[in-house]
Amino acid sequence: MALRDLKPVARNAEGAALVAGVLKQRFGERFQTGQAIREQHAHTTTYIPVQAPDGVVFPETAEEVQEVVKLCAQHRVPVIAFGTGTSLEGHVNAPGGGISLDTSRMNRVLAVHAEDLDVVVEPGVTREGLNTHLRDTGLFFPIDPGANASLGGMAATRASGTNAVRYGTMRENVLSLSAVLADGSLISTGKRAKKSSAGYDLTRLIVGSEGTLGIITALTLKLYGIPQAIAGGVCPFPSVDAACQAVIATIQMGIPVARIELVNALQMRALKTYSKLDYPESPCLFLEFHGSDSGVAEQSELFGEIAAEYGGGPFQWTKVAEERARLWKARHDAYWASMTLRPGAKGLSTDVCVPISRLAECIAETEADIAEMSLIAPIVGHVGDGNFHVLVLMDPDSRAEIESTERFVERLNMRAIAMDGTCTGEHGIGQGKMGFIEHELGHGVDVMRAVKAALDPLGILNPGKIF
Amino acid sequence: MALRDLKPVARNAEGAALVAGVLKQRFGERFQTGQAIREQHAHTTTYIPVQAPDGVVFPETAEEVQEVVKLCAQHRVPVIAFGTGTSLEGHVNAPGGGISLDTSRMNRVLAVHAEDLDVVVEPGVTREGLNTHLRDTGLFFPIDPGANASLGGMAATRASGTNAVRYGTMRENVLSLSAVLADGSLISTGKRAKKSSAGYDLTRLIVGSEGTLGIITALTLKLYGIPQAIAGGVCPFPSVDAACQAVIATIQMGIPVARIELVNALQMRALKTYSKLDYPESPCLFLEFHGSDSGVAEQSELFGEIAAEYGGGPFQWTKVAEERARLWKARHDAYWASMTLRPGAKGLSTDVCVPISRLAECIAETEADIAEMSLIAPIVGHVGDGNFHVLVLMDPDSRAEIESTERFVERLNMRAIAMDGTCTGEHGIGQGKMGFIEHELGHGVDVMRAVKAALDPLGILNPGKIF
Repeated sequence: MALRDLKPVARNAEGAALVAGVLKQRFGERFQTGQAIREQHAHTTTYIPVQAPDGVVFPETAEEVQEVVKLCAQHRVPVIAFGTGTSLEGHVNAPGGGISLDTSRMNRVLAVHAEDLDVVVEPGVTREGLNTHLRDTGLFFPIDPGANASLGGMAATRASGTNAVRYGTMRENVLSLSAVLADGSLISTGKRAKKSSAGYDLTRLIVGSEGTLGIITALTLKLYGIPQAIAGGVCPFPSVDAACQAVIATIQMGIPVARIELVNALQMRALKTYSKLDYPESPCLFLEFHGSDSGVAEQSELFGEIAAEYGGGPFQWTKVAEERARLWKARHDAYWASMTLRPGAKGLSTDVCVPISRLAECIAETEADIAEMSLIAPIVGHVGDGNFHVLVLMDPDSRAEIESTERFVERLNMRAIAMDGTCTGEHGIGQGKMGFIEHELGHGVDVMRAVKAALDPLGILNPGKIF
Repeated sequence: MALRDLKPVARNAEGAALVAGVLKQRFGERFQTGQAIREQHAHTTTYIPVQAPDGVVFPETAEEVQEVVKLCAQHRVPVIAFGTGTSLEGHVNAPGGGISLDTSRMNRVLAVHAEDLDVVVEPGVTREGLNTHLRDTGLFFPIDPGANASLGGMAATRASGTNAVRYGTMRENVLSLSAVLADGSLISTGKRAKKSSAGYDLTRLIVGSEGTLGIITALTLKLYGIPQAIAGGVCPFPSVDAACQAVIATIQMGIPVARIELVNALQMRALKTYSKLDYPESPCLFLEFHGSDSGVAEQSELFGEIAAEYGGGPFQWTKVAEERARLWKARHDAYWASMTLRPGAKGLSTDVCVPISRLAECIAETEADIAEMSLIAPIVGHVGDGNFHVLVLMDPDSRAEIESTERFVERLNMRAIAMDGTCTGEHGIGQGKMGFIEHELGHGVDVMRAVKAALDPLGILNPGKIF
């Protein structure tokens, strides 16, 4: 699907040249056109071809973002917002050229409101940067997509990650935001109240819009108190199905698990070698519990009992920070561990999300596909949400392997949709998943197009993405 | 302000007569034009004047909703979706006449997915109806705006209530929905996956749009396991400020309180008489904790310690269901209790929401206003979210009282906005709050208008509301 469906966008070379001239004069060293930097600002994280912008600008204020967008609107030149470039579906590619708007210099934490459990940041602040900034407050921002992504990028792609099961996704954790629209005007989508019924939910309209409706210039995010106690551990299961049944029972009992991650047998093999973990090469759940000292102990014991009911265990858990850190480092290193399964390969990471009742079946059919197609493709999943990732290790120079990977991805996505799920739980549509969104949402995509046409009639904001 | 700002909408009497003729023929007894039923389908819950529709239709399927909307679109006649009519800001009024589309016959629970903790319902199912349906499953739907509202109406107004602090609002609890758009087409905004990054968040675009973008025909809602144990109680405080400080500390410590409601001194006086509660006539917090047996005990003890630190207490709590039920019945009867403070008066209920750090100050200034303006106006609040309600008891036949009430409401709303809050936490804009949304969101309201124009170019869906 991915390669076949890259949507062409007409180039406006003359306009781009005019814009580049003005930007050079206006921004000096903060506007770059060298090939290396342009290519770094295109898609670099999978085999989707690099489509570089014509130049990269580094604004420092919302007013500068407005200036750039107005200039580009005037000359009908695309503007592509760029955070850290860790998106996985070609979101930052420039199929019609244009200007990459790099937010990395907009990286100030503008205000921490400890009493209100919120923080106001510029879009270029990264999640690790934010948590470092917060280190003396007793508060933290939980959303963790793995990469040290920018918060603007995370909002734009509706990112989530391992602890979404407890804390939600960017959808739930952006209180409000400011954004520059396609005409260069600046809007604020709300104040700092925890909830509001004042008109359309513009915050959620921009979150997940992948830079196609507006460029985020500030975000108000929810914060959480660092829990008094954290417990975590690993629990092996005889099968993916048994692990999924245990997850369902855990969620149904209302155990407020903070993380519940599935690692399949192949991925465990990679982790054992790479991270020197001493667990069986069978499907495992990695868990974490947040709460009071007695609370996390109670939750851990309860989960251990549930696991045993489904033939899993022993569930070894600990409150010792160093031991937990080692486990979660291993989980976060899953990508690098996987790469050792096929040195020299390129990894294509794809994600789907299904109702949790269909998860075991969906993973089983996917593992069968992997075996039948002779792919090397470990699976990890945020299974509390029914979300899982497959990392296909392939030779990027082999047309045959790309084609079989695409066939596999297509089958996986159509399977998830057929199971009342979605073609992407957290990676977004970008260029890579454009072939699937119509299958999933039908006429709903026309509504998206109508909103896009109303807010960006010239189509200059990140064209060639989503639909 | 409410009276001053009721937006006129041009009537299309000829079109309405044509539509009524066709609907009578098509729907027979399921289309009504009697004055009483028309007036019941207009705004009846405050002093905003009744603006009745030209007729009321009772569709039973999404296809019938499509038929009605297509017919109205053809003749440019307004369609106003109607649930149970418990909204408080004139949402269901028909300032330009037109057809009230009553969803009460679309009241089937279509599917309960216990393993996935979700349920699919038609819009006319009420929240009590849903929970009765679920009674043997061990699951419940928590959102409780007080009235036994329809779930379609609750979604359309982004309702919440006492336990939003723990479970979120309709924003967080609608997984996806189906809606008939202004052209009569039907969309589905998503599948049943817990999370998705597939394009624009159409679910959140429709939730809170007050029937102006589409008419909801089905909803997939999140469910929760009924907690193993529930504890609750009442805690008096020497002042609203002390109570608010205790709330802030409770939230900051991450105690997962399920309900934390402020009742001010005047409201306590009314409750003591009406509900025979034996507490001092001082500001009180009503609390509820959900969890395991030991968990709720731990949370209750912890809260008691926090309350004592701020001069509050004693915190009397219980796990006995009957005693808790009595407390919460009293809290839910606050409206009726208040009415005894001024027999014969009409109550105007208004709500605002501010960052919790500003809550004590906002309530103090509001109480000062009430005293200075000699109003009788008790206050209750979902203070964990910074949200509170003032019920102004006034003589609806007194122009002077209406004017002073409007002045009070205006001052309250502008105060909340100035404190970085919102003019409505959960009631919505409707007709009553149209004067404030521009103050709160500025150019953002133009974006809402652009979306509205794109999706409803003829302006037939609930005209004269929001902006």
